[in-house]
Amino acid sequence: MHTSTAFLTDHYELTMVDAALRSGTAHRRSVFELFARRLSGARRYGVVAGTGRLLEAIGRFRFGDAELEFLRERAIVADRTLDWLADFRFSGEIWGYPEGEVFFPGSPLVIVESSFAEGVLLETLALSILNADSAVATAASRMAHAAGGKPLAEMGSRRTGEYSAVAAARAAYVAGFSATSNLEAGRSYGIPTMGTAAHSFTLLHDSEREAFEAQVAALGTDTTLLVDTYDIEQGVRTAVEVAGTDLGAVRIDSGDLPVVVARVRQLLDELGATRTRITVTNDLDEHTVAALASSPVDSFGVGTSVVTGSGTPTMGMVYKLVAHENDEGEWVSVAKKSADKASVGGRKSVRRAFNRRGIATAELLFLGDGPGGEPEGSELAASSREVLVPLVEAGEVRAEHIGSAGIAAARERHRACVAELPPVAMSLTRGDPAIPTEYR
Amino acid sequence: MHTSTAFLTDHYELTMVDAALRSGTAHRRSVFELFARRLSGARRYGVVAGTGRLLEAIGRFRFGDAELEFLRERAIVADRTLDWLADFRFSGEIWGYPEGEVFFPGSPLVIVESSFAEGVLLETLALSILNADSAVATAASRMAHAAGGKPLAEMGSRRTGEYSAVAAARAAYVAGFSATSNLEAGRSYGIPTMGTAAHSFTLLHDSEREAFEAQVAALGTDTTLLVDTYDIEQGVRTAVEVAGTDLGAVRIDSGDLPVVVARVRQLLDELGATRTRITVTNDLDEHTVAALASSPVDSFGVGTSVVTGSGTPTMGMVYKLVAHENDEGEWVSVAKKSADKASVGGRKSVRRAFNRRGIATAELLFLGDGPGGEPEGSELAASSREVLVPLVEAGEVRAEHIGSAGIAAARERHRACVAELPPVAMSLTRGDPAIPTEYR
Repeated sequence: MHTSTAFLTDHYELTMVDAALRSGTAHRRSVFELFARRLSGARRYGVVAGTGRLLEAIGRFRFGDAELEFLRERAIVADRTLDWLADFRFSGEIWGYPEGEVFFPGSPLVIVESSFAEGVLLETLALSILNADSAVATAASRMAHAAGGKPLAEMGSRRTGEYSAVAAARAAYVAGFSATSNLEAGRSYGIPTMGTAAHSFTLLHDSEREAFEAQVAALGTDTTLLVDTYDIEQGVRTAVEVAGTDLGAVRIDSGDLPVVVARVRQLLDELGATRTRITVTNDLDEHTVAALASSPVDSFGVGTSVVTGSGTPTMGMVYKLVAHENDEGEWVSVAKKSADKASVGGRKSVRRAFNRRGIATAELLFLGDGPGGEPEGSELAASSREVLVPLVEAGEVRAEHIGSAGIAAARERHRACVAELPPVAMSLTRGDPAIPTEYR
Repeated sequence: MHTSTAFLTDHYELTMVDAALRSGTAHRRSVFELFARRLSGARRYGVVAGTGRLLEAIGRFRFGDAELEFLRERAIVADRTLDWLADFRFSGEIWGYPEGEVFFPGSPLVIVESSFAEGVLLETLALSILNADSAVATAASRMAHAAGGKPLAEMGSRRTGEYSAVAAARAAYVAGFSATSNLEAGRSYGIPTMGTAAHSFTLLHDSEREAFEAQVAALGTDTTLLVDTYDIEQGVRTAVEVAGTDLGAVRIDSGDLPVVVARVRQLLDELGATRTRITVTNDLDEHTVAALASSPVDSFGVGTSVVTGSGTPTMGMVYKLVAHENDEGEWVSVAKKSADKASVGGRKSVRRAFNRRGIATAELLFLGDGPGGEPEGSELAASSREVLVPLVEAGEVRAEHIGSAGIAAARERHRACVAELPPVAMSLTRGDPAIPTEYR
């Protein structure tokens, strides 16, 4: 693995820098926006995730000897471009939606203001991270709501790339999950990790009883025993016989869960294990979680569906040049003209409007001077709040957005932002965004 | 980034090792199989990818001080387990389908024979890599067939996690793509990289003409000019005026492609640019590629759909204990009993059967002594071939399966294996596997 993130990018970002350095346009001050034209999967709201990871990755976006040598060997850029890349440090400004925020079509999630060359270099990396992480977080947020306050653990490492698994654990945690099975996510991000045993552990032993005895001897009676390798009812009886009525939990990974869970709860209670919890893990998604929310399930483990964005593995975000200075130093708004991929040029600021009960009513995108200004009119100031925050100032990453502190803040922010959405946002059906995006 | 891959795994793999070391079952000789119960997405065949990456990752599966300290701090395993982990080197045998092979439901893609503890530790990592990479390769193979021999470039880095992007480029290349936009895939795996410019480059300049002039000055007339930022027809005219009739290619990224492509081809010919190629890149998948295969398109760039497995971002593979030795040294076949997740216990070998014309007719799974034996009966030997190959012997990775040589071999193998499939395999509709899996 290379420490540098500079090659996690598309070839053409470098050829554009090369050509722009040659033509003299590379240093034109430019504004790029990262946004989604629509909410993939007809979600009611999106969840921003990955921002902290992006900021950390930008700090490691360096062209060292290994990268420069590869570019030279393959003759991808000219020598003077190599010199420019060797010195590259992002020195511009980045505003954006803070991690954990909700978003809507057109929301400028990341706004990069820098020279063209510096801004264009970050395109692929920014999109990779935000598209993937936000897809997971958007699905996870729906699941967290569907679970009705019961804890959810992310257990999908095996169903996505080995490094995407770490990022997915982080994104799910930001969006309301409480733990992960992934050890690297525990180490890198401080997320609680969990897990006890798989069916293979039971099958390894000469009997289910011996497997349970081995697990309880190592992990204590507060462990979670997997009871469905053979017969579930017998499994529950053996579990309580081995661990006693202080058994922490039983896990069920197969069968018709609403029926099975009710029977297992009844059986545990009959056996005196009234405090033993039930956790279920059988290919759950937000719909099956919602269907189980009122059953006597105590916690959920979700795998495939959360790490793959529950049918929407990428958010379809794009990164577009929306304005640049010309040779006279005047700002020019720009946008691609083709009908099916139109974008709105120009610098923007964003405010979220609320009604008197504090419920969000619209995402207001103001064309003008960009983020950081004051709203015109006291009424607007009172009934809306600024959404964009500074993420990078003169090349310096704002510390509150990265590391474990950034994740904790994002998790809390997400909880607060979802609570402000109108009830329709919680619908699991496909539909329109919960609030409209209005250009002012 | 950590060099070790040992934490790209689930917490419970370690608690199982911990409990099994304590109960004395950890050292039981065991056989694990990695397989798919069905072909996700109702594909007609699957494509094995990631095997080489897995073998490389196993070589870096080490518990160093950083990993051991984390496990100690969080009290995840007992001290004697930490000692065992500190010394861990995979020392067992691995057989499997060689990378690039096609597969079917039940095909044992990776067979790990080792102590239980060594084999169970590899579960999450093996599944992460093969599930993700094979999903991409399976989609890519369909696209390569749909393109009818025209070259395909993978351009989806921005639509998947930043490290999954590198793996996706590799998997697509194994399955028949000819290039990628991803620079790290170029460096790590020797895959040809490509790309020239995005719309932002055109928008940066004061006119489309100036942008084209800048690009041609830097990249030469053999470059690919993106002609759809404003009006496509005018874009083509300007491109030929600037670059001359030796212009390498034009790229079209929007519009109703069959119609647009025909018009652009006609226009290029009228302008004398008869050798200028046309490449298209507008959210293509295997279906839109197939629809364009007979149009005057010269090459395709595919992004989102290939890196997300075209609707099937993970193959749903599982990793199951199928046999272990008991304390008497006898092999015991094992399998989970629950109705919806049954697996077939026991050691297996695999032969692919062919008809007289050399077309595959069935995947034969023999329960018995495992891979490496001789088939019973000369007729079977003549009409079928062994599918499994040794990947790791006594802990040593076979060199032909890793690195650039492994990728080149996998790519060639894939081409040969697909050519042996019956015509129905090439159908893009959902359906049954192209050949049945038969247990003998």
